[in-house]
Amino acid sequence: MSDLDEIAAIIGETRVLTGADAAPYATDWTGAYTGAPLAVLRPKDTAEVAAILKIANAAGTPVVPVSGHTGLTGATMGQDALMLSLDRLNTIYAIDPEARTARIGAGVILSSLHDAADAHDLIFPLTFGARGSAMIGGVLSTNAGGSNVLRYGNTRDLCLGLEVVMADGRIMNLMSALHKDNSGLNLRQLLIGAEGTLGIITAAVMKLKPKPRAYATAMVAVPALSDALGLLNTLQDATGGAVEAFEYMPRSYIDRHIALISGARPPFEDAYDVNILVEVGATAPRDATPGPDGQVPITAMLEDTLGAMMEEGRLLDAVIAQNDAQRAEMWARREAAGEILVQGGNFVNTDVAVPLDKVATFLTRVTPRLKAIDPDAHEVVVSHLGDGNIHHTTLLKRNDPDVMAALVEAVEDVVQELGGSFSAEHGVGLSKLDTMRRRKDPVALDTMRAIKTALDPKGILNPGKVIPD
Amino acid sequence: MSDLDEIAAIIGETRVLTGADAAPYATDWTGAYTGAPLAVLRPKDTAEVAAILKIANAAGTPVVPVSGHTGLTGATMGQDALMLSLDRLNTIYAIDPEARTARIGAGVILSSLHDAADAHDLIFPLTFGARGSAMIGGVLSTNAGGSNVLRYGNTRDLCLGLEVVMADGRIMNLMSALHKDNSGLNLRQLLIGAEGTLGIITAAVMKLKPKPRAYATAMVAVPALSDALGLLNTLQDATGGAVEAFEYMPRSYIDRHIALISGARPPFEDAYDVNILVEVGATAPRDATPGPDGQVPITAMLEDTLGAMMEEGRLLDAVIAQNDAQRAEMWARREAAGEILVQGGNFVNTDVAVPLDKVATFLTRVTPRLKAIDPDAHEVVVSHLGDGNIHHTTLLKRNDPDVMAALVEAVEDVVQELGGSFSAEHGVGLSKLDTMRRRKDPVALDTMRAIKTALDPKGILNPGKVIPD
Repeated sequence: MSDLDEIAAIIGETRVLTGADAAPYATDWTGAYTGAPLAVLRPKDTAEVAAILKIANAAGTPVVPVSGHTGLTGATMGQDALMLSLDRLNTIYAIDPEARTARIGAGVILSSLHDAADAHDLIFPLTFGARGSAMIGGVLSTNAGGSNVLRYGNTRDLCLGLEVVMADGRIMNLMSALHKDNSGLNLRQLLIGAEGTLGIITAAVMKLKPKPRAYATAMVAVPALSDALGLLNTLQDATGGAVEAFEYMPRSYIDRHIALISGARPPFEDAYDVNILVEVGATAPRDATPGPDGQVPITAMLEDTLGAMMEEGRLLDAVIAQNDAQRAEMWARREAAGEILVQGGNFVNTDVAVPLDKVATFLTRVTPRLKAIDPDAHEVVVSHLGDGNIHHTTLLKRNDPDVMAALVEAVEDVVQELGGSFSAEHGVGLSKLDTMRRRKDPVALDTMRAIKTALDPKGILNPGKVIPD
Repeated sequence: MSDLDEIAAIIGETRVLTGADAAPYATDWTGAYTGAPLAVLRPKDTAEVAAILKIANAAGTPVVPVSGHTGLTGATMGQDALMLSLDRLNTIYAIDPEARTARIGAGVILSSLHDAADAHDLIFPLTFGARGSAMIGGVLSTNAGGSNVLRYGNTRDLCLGLEVVMADGRIMNLMSALHKDNSGLNLRQLLIGAEGTLGIITAAVMKLKPKPRAYATAMVAVPALSDALGLLNTLQDATGGAVEAFEYMPRSYIDRHIALISGARPPFEDAYDVNILVEVGATAPRDATPGPDGQVPITAMLEDTLGAMMEEGRLLDAVIAQNDAQRAEMWARREAAGEILVQGGNFVNTDVAVPLDKVATFLTRVTPRLKAIDPDAHEVVVSHLGDGNIHHTTLLKRNDPDVMAALVEAVEDVVQELGGSFSAEHGVGLSKLDTMRRRKDPVALDTMRAIKTALDPKGILNPGKVIPD
């Protein structure tokens, strides 16, 4: 009996996809990475995942875990591998509204978790564009970020427990719901963000948070990007740390938004260089309940804070959303980033992070270097500024791979000079593998290799990704 | 030249302590673990730490890192090892008030970091009793907790970057100050809490937080412990997550406090079973600035919330501190825990955690089992209830090691039944090594062993601690 027959006998023949059935899995969401898998396997539970890994490990067959297939780095490319889809492990086992936890399978879609929390007047705060397809297994394996990491942290900050199937098929039970646990090495944190190279996450315990009862949202223009961190700190201090989003859009982004998106309008009457979307969330009723004048206190607080800063000359302009439609327009401008970039032909983009006080330096330093490589290069930047996370895109007139590589290299050079990271929230996968090899601390790389070899001696788990040879 | 001579030639003869000079290091703060080291080494910087490890690794000589020596589990016991003291790596390299980070050496004393942050009107929030001696290297290596983890997280949540000397003396540079970084396996999180078994932490980048401008503190009595989580959630919702401490003291604790501590007074006129110290911190000026009536808004908010709960019959009693002296008295009651336990002869204590909604079940279930072992057993409990962390102590009339072991076993049985951890915040060291062997998930144990062997093949780093053979 072949390995696939053996697997089919365990998980059912209809759950082993080959040929045309497997074809949709050959290309991920980005379309940039294509690879024909040996087969796509759709186990129904952890025991079946374990059985598959036992067989694959014995045979030394590569296994690539996949959940929503929405990653941006090619980490789920399954060429010549068994693709192990976690989509059927989609059970929400329990929502505990008192302890504010959710126990869920790795195949639960992110937006389903949002809905399940909402039914208890709670939120699972992590969110991003692909929330309708991304599954929690992938969210954990890439330590996904998004727009409100500032307040709630990255995925790893929102996970209390994990169940993991190791390379040899053994099940590691770390499914606790504990806020303090110092019983040995923290394997949970090691597995989160490992992109499926050390084990396959099959279930998790996630934290839930109180649902904000009201939001106050504004567009703010400051004189220079170096003034932005002062604005953030002032807002954090004034609101007791309630800033949920702090998103930077430079003039070039605003211009492009207006040029490309039908119905798009400028945020202010005048045009400014440094435009920031600010959102504050109020969970306390006293902040969210409209007063006798009809005004929501959180909105009044934002208005007072921005008004005082304006009087001090620290702001150039500020507009506060007065209703849901105005708030939606502010967010639509930010969320158009993907569309704005794709329209326009040739581009290279990066997902980098620098220390909070180095974003302005980064942007000042990178521009002349890009222009030196390609005088026609045009930068479009959008940034989760509160996390120091910059999505930097360079548009080019020509589709020249050498020039494109040189542009990425120039961006990453500046990142490295400023003590930043070449991968802030998307991970490494295949797309940053060469960068890892050249730019990551060599002792850290060797340490990663040693851990990989120790936990997956035959190298079957997502081989060739994340950790360069 | 002997290894010690070689080391002396590098770090200086006066920095190699032996004989009487080394004797003070033989016993830690608890006095429970004693071991004569081969020598105590006091390198001045990372390069000297690296040089020492190269020599020790070549010779296969055990190295036990020590900083403040205030741990509670024997993790720094240095019998037949080179004790590597980090006390001279005590430089605060930089405080960045805008990015709200501190770059410091592993030998910086926790209270020195507190002072350095305070000078910029910021806080490093993590704190505990031994703050005047504990050093940041040990704080990180044990992932220390304390009383305000509820709001600010454990040590691992407050660390952005690390510098680590690996077993073979190579220096791993993870000294970033990034809020998002998905460039490969998260080695920082693996090293934090590893108790010096995988590498020696020599420097770190820590997060700083806005300093609360005012606190509102209260003692609250609820009908039953199972009502406490509802109180916590109500307070979190009302204050937007500003609860800094939520500390449970049962009637037996209060009685013992009054009996043993001179001048101690009961928290309420009547005596209750479930007494909780609540503290809310206000960072926003609007919450901290006294109104025309002289009242501080954060205090008014706490009063309103507790008042409403009282009317709903959800509280039995509540007293809000009206001034600093009253707040200090409330905290003194909680911080007397150590004294209260030590007076009284024979005892066994544990540091356990259970899910937030299981604390009441834990206490109900554990009592009859202890009484069955020793009818004279008397429990004293104090709990960081907001984290599910219970410091459970059993007082005995007789000093009988078998009975003591049986009592600990009974507590840990209940912890395990409820999905808890036998070590919440103190770590494993030597004291929980046998428990690790018997109670930790066996696949997790094997995974820890594999990682240990991969990163420290000769087993020189803090051997015999944390990870059982």
